[in-house]
Amino acid sequence: MKILVINPNTTTSMTDKIASAARAVARPDTEIVAASSQDGPASIQGFLDVATCVPGLLKEVVQHRDVDAIVIACFDDTGLDALRTLVSVPVLGIGEAAYHAASMIANKFSVITTLSRSVPGLENNLMRYGLAQKCGRVRATEIPVLKLEEGDPATLDKIRSEIRVAIEQDNAEAIVLGCAGMADLMAHLSEEFGLPVIDGVAAGITFAEALVNNKLRTSKIGAYSYS
Amino acid sequence: MKILVINPNTTTSMTDKIASAARAVARPDTEIVAASSQDGPASIQGFLDVATCVPGLLKEVVQHRDVDAIVIACFDDTGLDALRTLVSVPVLGIGEAAYHAASMIANKFSVITTLSRSVPGLENNLMRYGLAQKCGRVRATEIPVLKLEEGDPATLDKIRSEIRVAIEQDNAEAIVLGCAGMADLMAHLSEEFGLPVIDGVAAGITFAEALVNNKLRTSKIGAYSYS
Amino acid sequence: MKILVINPNTTTSMTDKIASAARAVARPDTEIVAASSQDGPASIQGFLDVATCVPGLLKEVVQHRDVDAIVIACFDDTGLDALRTLVSVPVLGIGEAAYHAASMIANKFSVITTLSRSVPGLENNLMRYGLAQKCGRVRATEIPVLKLEEGDPATLDKIRSEIRVAIEQDNAEAIVLGCAGMADLMAHLSEEFGLPVIDGVAAGITFAEALVNNKLRTSKIGAYSYS
Amino acid sequence: MKILVINPNTTTSMTDKIASAARAVARPDTEIVAASSQDGPASIQGFLDVATCVPGLLKEVVQHRDVDAIVIACFDDTGLDALRTLVSVPVLGIGEAAYHAASMIANKFSVITTLSRSVPGLENNLMRYGLAQKCGRVRATEIPVLKLEEGDPATLDKIRSEIRVAIEQDNAEAIVLGCAGMADLMAHLSEEFGLPVIDGVAAGITFAEALVNNKLRTSKIGAYSYS
Amino acid sequence: MKILVINPNTTTSMTDKIASAARAVARPDTEIVAASSQDGPASIQGFLDVATCVPGLLKEVVQHRDVDAIVIACFDDTGLDALRTLVSVPVLGIGEAAYHAASMIANKFSVITTLSRSVPGLENNLMRYGLAQKCGRVRATEIPVLKLEEGDPATLDKIRSEIRVAIEQDNAEAIVLGCAGMADLMAHLSEEFGLPVIDGVAAGITFAEALVNNKLRTSKIGAYSYS
Amino acid sequence: MKILVINPNTTTSMTDKIASAARAVARPDTEIVAASSQDGPASIQGFLDVATCVPGLLKEVVQHRDVDAIVIACFDDTGLDALRTLVSVPVLGIGEAAYHAASMIANKFSVITTLSRSVPGLENNLMRYGLAQKCGRVRATEIPVLKLEEGDPATLDKIRSEIRVAIEQDNAEAIVLGCAGMADLMAHLSEEFGLPVIDGVAAGITFAEALVNNKLRTSKIGAYSYS
Repeated sequence: MKILVINPNTTTSMTDKIASAARAVARPDTEIVAASSQDGPASIQGFLDVATCVPGLLKEVVQHRDVDAIVIACFDDTGLDALRTLVSVPVLGIGEAAYHAASMIANKFSVITTLSRSVPGLENNLMRYGLAQKCGRVRATEIPVLKLEEGDPATLDKIRSEIRVAIEQDNAEAIVLGCAGMADLMAHLSEEFGLPVIDGVAAGITFAEALVNNKLRTSKIGAYSYS
Repeated sequence: MKILVINPNTTTSMTDKIASAARAVARPDTEIVAASSQDGPASIQGFLDVATCVPGLLKEVVQHRDVDAIVIACFDDTGLDALRTLVSVPVLGIGEAAYHAASMIANKFSVITTLSRSVPGLENNLMRYGLAQKCGRVRATEIPVLKLEEGDPATLDKIRSEIRVAIEQDNAEAIVLGCAGMADLMAHLSEEFGLPVIDGVAAGITFAEALVNNKLRTSKIGAYSYS
Repeated sequence: MKILVINPNTTTSMTDKIASAARAVARPDTEIVAASSQDGPASIQGFLDVATCVPGLLKEVVQHRDVDAIVIACFDDTGLDALRTLVSVPVLGIGEAAYHAASMIANKFSVITTLSRSVPGLENNLMRYGLAQKCGRVRATEIPVLKLEEGDPATLDKIRSEIRVAIEQDNAEAIVLGCAGMADLMAHLSEEFGLPVIDGVAAGITFAEALVNNKLRTSKIGAYSYS
Repeated sequence: MKILVINPNTTTSMTDKIASAARAVARPDTEIVAASSQDGPASIQGFLDVATCVPGLLKEVVQHRDVDAIVIACFDDTGLDALRTLVSVPVLGIGEAAYHAASMIANKFSVITTLSRSVPGLENNLMRYGLAQKCGRVRATEIPVLKLEEGDPATLDKIRSEIRVAIEQDNAEAIVLGCAGMADLMAHLSEEFGLPVIDGVAAGITFAEALVNNKLRTSKIGAYSYS
Repeated sequence: MKILVINPNTTTSMTDKIASAARAVARPDTEIVAASSQDGPASIQGFLDVATCVPGLLKEVVQHRDVDAIVIACFDDTGLDALRTLVSVPVLGIGEAAYHAASMIANKFSVITTLSRSVPGLENNLMRYGLAQKCGRVRATEIPVLKLEEGDPATLDKIRSEIRVAIEQDNAEAIVLGCAGMADLMAHLSEEFGLPVIDGVAAGITFAEALVNNKLRTSKIGAYSYS
Repeated sequence: MKILVINPNTTTSMTDKIASAARAVARPDTEIVAASSQDGPASIQGFLDVATCVPGLLKEVVQHRDVDAIVIACFDDTGLDALRTLVSVPVLGIGEAAYHAASMIANKFSVITTLSRSVPGLENNLMRYGLAQKCGRVRATEIPVLKLEEGDPATLDKIRSEIRVAIEQDNAEAIVLGCAGMADLMAHLSEEFGLPVIDGVAAGITFAEALVNNKLRTSKIGAYSYS
């Protein structure tokens, strides 16, 4: 099967990282097509970026009509409803996928994301998916998305410190890393803290494979009908 | 990988049907181990059966300790919390798996199950998982679980009729078939009604594969800790 | 004061209707600036239209930077969060304004909108604003937005019939007309059915005046901060 | 138009302050009629005061039957449902009005009120209006209502300190001042903390003007019917 | 022990009926003191009656300060919070008591009450107590409270018919009779319909006995503190 | 009347303590039959114990079929739904009974229990009963159940310290002691902290007496029907 993983921002170094996280977890016979939006913000932080990246995202997606499933590689799940209306294959956001995965292996999870201004959008998504009650708290590190690309050790320390607080104060039993750019940190942090650390890209790809194997497609009755 | 799919009732013809639904959707390199409880009710309908089947379920599971994931093939997700406390591999109930799958491809779904007395247990599960808000209604056909085994055409008509009502009255965009014994009906009904019809066994197996590929295991901090 | 009322679709006959509804209710010293998006769908029905109309909406808004408040004249409240992030003056969606108004004069209200496919978006908005619990039901007439422009008597009959059902089945004490194109029907229906019928354009304009008179502006801390 | 702003306690110095806050924000052609209850507690703090002030409130209101709208100038919104049943003009509580205003300009707000014993009543109101989910926390300063009248600088310091905590701990993006006696502090605190500070009296008057301009009146079907 | 059962309306024939229902269920060593408000509405139907009956209720209660517990014999639980603030003995409303009792013996219950205009008040109470989720629906018979006193057979038929609908449509497993005046119907209807039918007066008296035997009194920290 | 109080664990010293707490509060003419499960865990802590103790609990209960009500003396309310399906007399869990009692005498309560791993089960129960919104927080002392038997003064100090935090941080107005083994501490702590401290055994016995006096039995329609 062929899965399109689409980065709705225009930073291709992030797309490369996402593609590599996707391929690391995909089945041998799954082809990962990684694409970036050609037109939109360099990173997606807050409601304005979320709204303005969608047309570029949709334009890029229609270039890849022969795929079996689509994963939106932005933790805000930008354009999720619009894409589900546009196509009939399954569409998953990486935030959505990570929350579902966390709900399957832990009683309560917390989310560690980038900036405070991104928190309300994630909280809204959690409420809408119904999974807010499984989430202890959405925590911001105040590290901008693109800063994560630089590999500064101080960056990792801030993430570690928020994980520690989430375990102590939120009774978090699992951690969702709330940014596509954090994908490569998963294994290390999971071992260090002795609890599951979930990356949305990996969760999104494997759940997309699952839906395709179930022959399940986006419903075309009601909310996502073509017209 | 090896996935244990465990039928918590003692009706082996149901176990065979479940095993076959599981193998139909599993990846070629996934080994499905299907087992029945040796000790418990012949079918699980209502709170008393749900409670009494758990020890037999746990006893059977510990015979299969080398598996990579466990799927509980009862739509009530009997023993889910207990099993997650007992083991460290991922554990999924087929009800739970089906609700998560439905939430990924439709804005709203309804559940069609067997007897009225099973409805409150499913409603409680949905509330606990957070997915009650995605569910239009849990509908009973009043067909006992074991009656489904007999292949009576009148049985299928009752299911069809409830699906029709769910679409019209609940605005259901997808249907979850709420019994392990309904697995073989999925494809026909999906085509007939032009909307996704979800079988929990298939959803459970493929999501278990996904979690294993993510290297995610049940959290051993908090609710599911060993001691 | 000057209020921008912006139609996020490109149908200028609707913009004219909206402008006239706005002016009918505005204070004598309030200047209404009515604008249409130059780039986007002809009407907004369902999630795809909602997403694709936002960039055109934002582009048009920045042409009118000297206004004291902005009202988004689409019942889906398209681009509400994005606009609040872009500007510091108060921004109101007409759906949002109508739900708040209804909550102030009735214990329970129902919404009558155009197509079924628009219902889930409105339900999501109501949940997010917290006002879902005051809403009996969002009801669709299956009349397309642009059909409303034609003034067909059969159209009005369908709306009447849904109002009747809302009173009987939902115990609705007020009706929210869920489309900008329905603004001119308000007074007639209110008198006919003996209950408040609320038009979002009127509610939006008057609430915008209220916020400006309060010297209240969109908070620039947190969710809607500039950066 | 003529708006009655009614102070349900018998402290006329508070009524004067309320009247002045009301006139400061009202339109030039709005006549503000300020009245105090003749019979009831000197201040309203806790459930017993809330209940006992209502008959005096109703008795005073019926002296002013020619008004176009009524604003109840007590942050507990005492007698709101009873008044809506008694009259057909719009009736707003200042707590209610402030919460709606805050919801229109911020993603999350916190309330700063007087005594701890008043907090549960405000939390109940927020839950009932549906707006509890927009509210971070209702915070008490432990300053009695009448103490606010004295203009002690220590009083203002306590309010300031709670606002600071609300921003840091609740992620509050706007502050609702939860007592009619705090109305004159609004502008200063808003500037000092760089976020909207909302006074219920001002919000109540301007929203009442808005409802009257919409020709909206309290629904007389259902909850608020005369008989 | 001595329990005050207080009828907040002035219809003494209802007080007699209430007293008799209370004594029928009280323990032999429990003294029932039945009192009527001396000042207030003849029956309590809708928000205006609820508010205006409270001062008379409080005035009557302070005549009976040596009691061990108080039961408010109005299904709207009028004055419940005020009374809890006034006294330190346990205070129960008969609506509240009936909902708690129903929650202990059934998974879901429906309420049958008098007029439609009383429904929203009961729904608010249920939401506030947290028990709305156990309640299928609050149903009105449109029989005025005082009409119940007349013993008309048509009256009983309307109640029967609503019980039937509650079982079929709400999946009600128990029925709460939502008016003090319905107390004598309990046993007959329970037998006729084969499900528990709960009278709030009986539930209130026996729960008050239980709280007194537990030596539990109204908390005087927080919401119900004296000052 | 005769009430069976059943300890679902096999530690008979706890059963003795429970029996004595039950008899201390029961009416003179109530016969308390205290029984222990013959087969199951020595204490119930976490989901695995909760599930495995149920069959032993059911087996013991059927030895006592002539009782008028059953109280399950485990704070997790283990086997509550199963027992309600098995019998027709009223069945109460001591957790459930304590939460209902707390809701009747306080606006908000907190729960003090044994180990962290028991907290999620109690939170689920509170959510299911609808009473989560009345509960500030479920707090763990990290004292194992059987340790409570030893009467170590350090144990009591930990409980005291959590009560103090619950009052300060949760605004708790009443405390529920979340373990059957804590029953004898109730009176002392209540006096020391000046607020109601609730023991589930006492609440369960007295509410069971109340339901029996009401002639109320478990509904046999729907969730708890025999078949």
